Amino acid sequence: MGYKSDIEIAREADKKPIQEIGAKLGIESKDLLPYGHDKAKVSQSFINSVQDRADGKLILVTAINPTPAGEGKTTTTVGLGDGLNRIGKKACVCIREASLGPNFGMKGGAAGGGYAQVVPMEEMNLHFTGDFHAITSAHSLLSAMIDNHIYWGNELEIDVRRVVWRRVVDMNDRALRQITASLGGVANGFPREAGFDITVASEVMAILCLANNLQDLQKRLGDMIVAYRRDRSPVFARDIKADGAMTVLLKDAMQPNIVQTLENNPAFVHGGPFANIAHGCNSVIATTTALKLADYVVTEAGFGADLGAEKFLNIKCRKAGLSPSVVVCVATVRAMKMNGGVAKADLGAENVDAVKAGCPNLGRHIENLKSFGVPVVVAINHFVTDTDAEVQAVKDFVAAQGAEAVLSRHWELGSEGSADLATKVAELADSGVANFAPIYPDEMSLADKIQTIAKRIYRADEALMDQKIRDQLKLWEEQGYGNLPVCMAKTQYSFSTDPSLRGAPTGFSVPVREVRLSAGAGFIVAVCGEIMTMPGLPRTPSAESIMLNEDGQIEGLF
Amino acid sequence: MGYKSDIEIAREADKKPIQEIGAKLGIESKDLLPYGHDKAKVSQSFINSVQDRADGKLILVTAINPTPAGEGKTTTTVGLGDGLNRIGKKACVCIREASLGPNFGMKGGAAGGGYAQVVPMEEMNLHFTGDFHAITSAHSLLSAMIDNHIYWGNELEIDVRRVVWRRVVDMNDRALRQITASLGGVANGFPREAGFDITVASEVMAILCLANNLQDLQKRLGDMIVAYRRDRSPVFARDIKADGAMTVLLKDAMQPNIVQTLENNPAFVHGGPFANIAHGCNSVIATTTALKLADYVVTEAGFGADLGAEKFLNIKCRKAGLSPSVVVCVATVRAMKMNGGVAKADLGAENVDAVKAGCPNLGRHIENLKSFGVPVVVAINHFVTDTDAEVQAVKDFVAAQGAEAVLSRHWELGSEGSADLATKVAELADSGVANFAPIYPDEMSLADKIQTIAKRIYRADEALMDQKIRDQLKLWEEQGYGNLPVCMAKTQYSFSTDPSLRGAPTGFSVPVREVRLSAGAGFIVAVCGEIMTMPGLPRTPSAESIMLNEDGQIEGLF
Repeated sequence: MGYKSDIEIAREADKKPIQEIGAKLGIESKDLLPYGHDKAKVSQSFINSVQDRADGKLILVTAINPTPAGEGKTTTTVGLGDGLNRIGKKACVCIREASLGPNFGMKGGAAGGGYAQVVPMEEMNLHFTGDFHAITSAHSLLSAMIDNHIYWGNELEIDVRRVVWRRVVDMNDRALRQITASLGGVANGFPREAGFDITVASEVMAILCLANNLQDLQKRLGDMIVAYRRDRSPVFARDIKADGAMTVLLKDAMQPNIVQTLENNPAFVHGGPFANIAHGCNSVIATTTALKLADYVVTEAGFGADLGAEKFLNIKCRKAGLSPSVVVCVATVRAMKMNGGVAKADLGAENVDAVKAGCPNLGRHIENLKSFGVPVVVAINHFVTDTDAEVQAVKDFVAAQGAEAVLSRHWELGSEGSADLATKVAELADSGVANFAPIYPDEMSLADKIQTIAKRIYRADEALMDQKIRDQLKLWEEQGYGNLPVCMAKTQYSFSTDPSLRGAPTGFSVPVREVRLSAGAGFIVAVCGEIMTMPGLPRTPSAESIMLNEDGQIEGLF
Repeated sequence: MGYKSDIEIAREADKKPIQEIGAKLGIESKDLLPYGHDKAKVSQSFINSVQDRADGKLILVTAINPTPAGEGKTTTTVGLGDGLNRIGKKACVCIREASLGPNFGMKGGAAGGGYAQVVPMEEMNLHFTGDFHAITSAHSLLSAMIDNHIYWGNELEIDVRRVVWRRVVDMNDRALRQITASLGGVANGFPREAGFDITVASEVMAILCLANNLQDLQKRLGDMIVAYRRDRSPVFARDIKADGAMTVLLKDAMQPNIVQTLENNPAFVHGGPFANIAHGCNSVIATTTALKLADYVVTEAGFGADLGAEKFLNIKCRKAGLSPSVVVCVATVRAMKMNGGVAKADLGAENVDAVKAGCPNLGRHIENLKSFGVPVVVAINHFVTDTDAEVQAVKDFVAAQGAEAVLSRHWELGSEGSADLATKVAELADSGVANFAPIYPDEMSLADKIQTIAKRIYRADEALMDQKIRDQLKLWEEQGYGNLPVCMAKTQYSFSTDPSLRGAPTGFSVPVREVRLSAGAGFIVAVCGEIMTMPGLPRTPSAESIMLNEDGQIEGLF
């Protein structure tokens, strides 16, 4: 094709010193804590100093249900940020950090693609500024303190069968999913079943991403439930006295990271909670800080709009008092075709009918997003194989939904290709038409919240909850957790819980298999289907071919 | 007493930007990778560029056998470095990084004390520049890849009962010492016994600290033995194809960290292997880099001279081609008294006889150190309760050994208090009298190397090795490991293996309980006594009182 790979483009980037990037947002060198020459954290004292400023406009980038064709949500987020800067707006992007472990399973990583990337790409996919390591440490400290408490007499009367706090490691290590710990005799404690999740699944990660400041962080850490007694009463991290030391370990990690796009525009990259058992957005502190420093802040949510945007709007925006001005829903001609029944191998050939057949998936997302009171723009993320007729078919469909679809060629052209999208987005953001509200009130019962999401967003007939689950939800309501929002954990590939049901399915139910309480993060998780919180490595992990080449460059990571 | 605490002094430090500190060693800003404003890594390209320069003089700081009274080895290392700078020498210090986990057990950490400290003290005791996290990640990747290899068919025919690669975490977590992993059914692998050590006990840590460069690092990582087959043939990390990706994870961690003393002199702080199952010194790359940049490099070794200095001289110096010009042996009047039989509570009262009774411990260390062909200076690390008569008793004893003892008051006075010591050390270093050689040749049999250390350093009658151990050593010799040095793992509190035998005991044997092969690090470990590679937390861990105060300062860590 003659196109350069993402990593080739990233390596050719003309990066500016991070101090120059910070200066674009009015951050002085003294307020930037550099990590090398191209990464920095924004100091807490600077963040404190800008709290009285007015907020910029918040733009959420979400997408149709993911398909193997790829939608380019992060690429569009970065491209739109660059596009806004190109048309003279003061804009920055806010995205999530990458998890270390999965990079060693499949080639992956990257932050955006083509000419819409954030750099330094390699560091961002390795240790970056150490945030995830800090989360692992804080989580591990609490883990050790729980078993240590039991070891030294168990004054809190923890039922060792009911320790719900699992350990974490930032690595795909299936051998640790289920273990028996504290073996080997008296000196090693009381044997019990335990297990590890991957770090991004830690409640500490979700908390770091939802906390407004260090005080709030410590309070939420203390609120986490780590175990139950035989009488089923909860034991909190605060009871273990771990919340203070965990906060110390997370002090630096709470400061958001700033890097740059290929076009030298500022980008916040901070936090990365799971998008199934957690809310899947970058940190509140990065978003709120960016809003104080830029006129337009472009951020994204995990998975498709049914999961990611729903949680962004119902959980993150609700909790952080955020109010988006526009939502951009990313679609591609290729993904429309796959939703219309075309196999991945056949995506290269023009097929306008298939595009049209796949559009109802997009249509439902548009309708859902509008129901939050926010205007929607569809970004057609252009692939070089797209034909004019196919693009027009998407545009016509979206127009019929009362929205507008804009073709964006940022992947190929950078901001030159996204200027039209940026112009449309800025126009809508400035119009003031947004009137955001979550789709359910805090006061609604937990069961009804689940039903609301299932019916209004997924268009299911109903959510199925058995007596045990309904009783559990009622118990939490009695314990004072009834006002929490709900975090849905289901497949990202369908509106339903069946990943093979593409398009805009109807006539299905959403079975809730299990409910969990994340008392520190502040949400109830409704698990609908198999959720894997510790991935494994494939037969031939990408790690086998990752190495430094003779020039000291990393090979095999991307 | 009116004296300020270490943390109070550290917080009052007038720190200079790390670029100014680097400039003192001729490192330009572009060659420093900053971590905040007061920490940096020295770039690999800069290190490569100075390889043709002549080396400065290497000064080792070691000590008598540790007592609960404290000897102040790191404090003396830092004080001596400042003292050398004060008398006009271009000097820097090289010390180890602190392990994160143990800080949450007992109050601790700190790098030096009083007015001889390295700063920023808090960061150095928390995440610092992330080196230990990188080691944990690299170690964890290999762990996951081993079980993943077994899961997908075990082509290498690993005997799951003979996986010798344990996992690590940088936390005191006794519950993980011994576990059963891969439980839960087919999807999670083949159940087997496993366990965790603390990160500093990882062979990856020892390798990082002994590797000359990234190529050497990767070779050594590949050389590590992770398991054996049923026919007892070894399986290497290279066979698992983990060495390349591990090197990528350790790429940044291999670059030494530079910080500053309270007097704004440069200090390298890099690496921190266990001093029992490993060699207990800072990284070779930090030491060799420092020697290219400074005229005098002051470094230290773990524990007392019988363990730390012996390993520094027989392992690190041998492997890295280093040749120390002077050894400084730190002693205190208080520790002499404890070696002379005084209880800790009675140390405040003058007791010249007890000082004299304890001196033979120091005498034996002096004699041992001289046997390596290096001149010895005794630094009497001054405590405010020491009387003149007590100090004189130590001086007289040392003079009778043909060496000189110099009183040093760096703890109280900084470099003003250590200028005399620095003058004496520089004089000896410049005299060229050193004629260093390890005390055993590479070609000696492994059993004889153990006997040599036991007899010549510990003054034992003999090392006791049963048939099984002798056979194991012979097998390793047949496999080509016979030329490796020996790393002794025994109590630090006595020349013998009985921690209660203070002073200069004779008439004892050294039972070797177990031998281990660290094929990547490049030494045989002789375990003489109980060695704990995963500490536990105490009944009331210091973590319970660690927190941020209202000013955002860390309380309870020190």
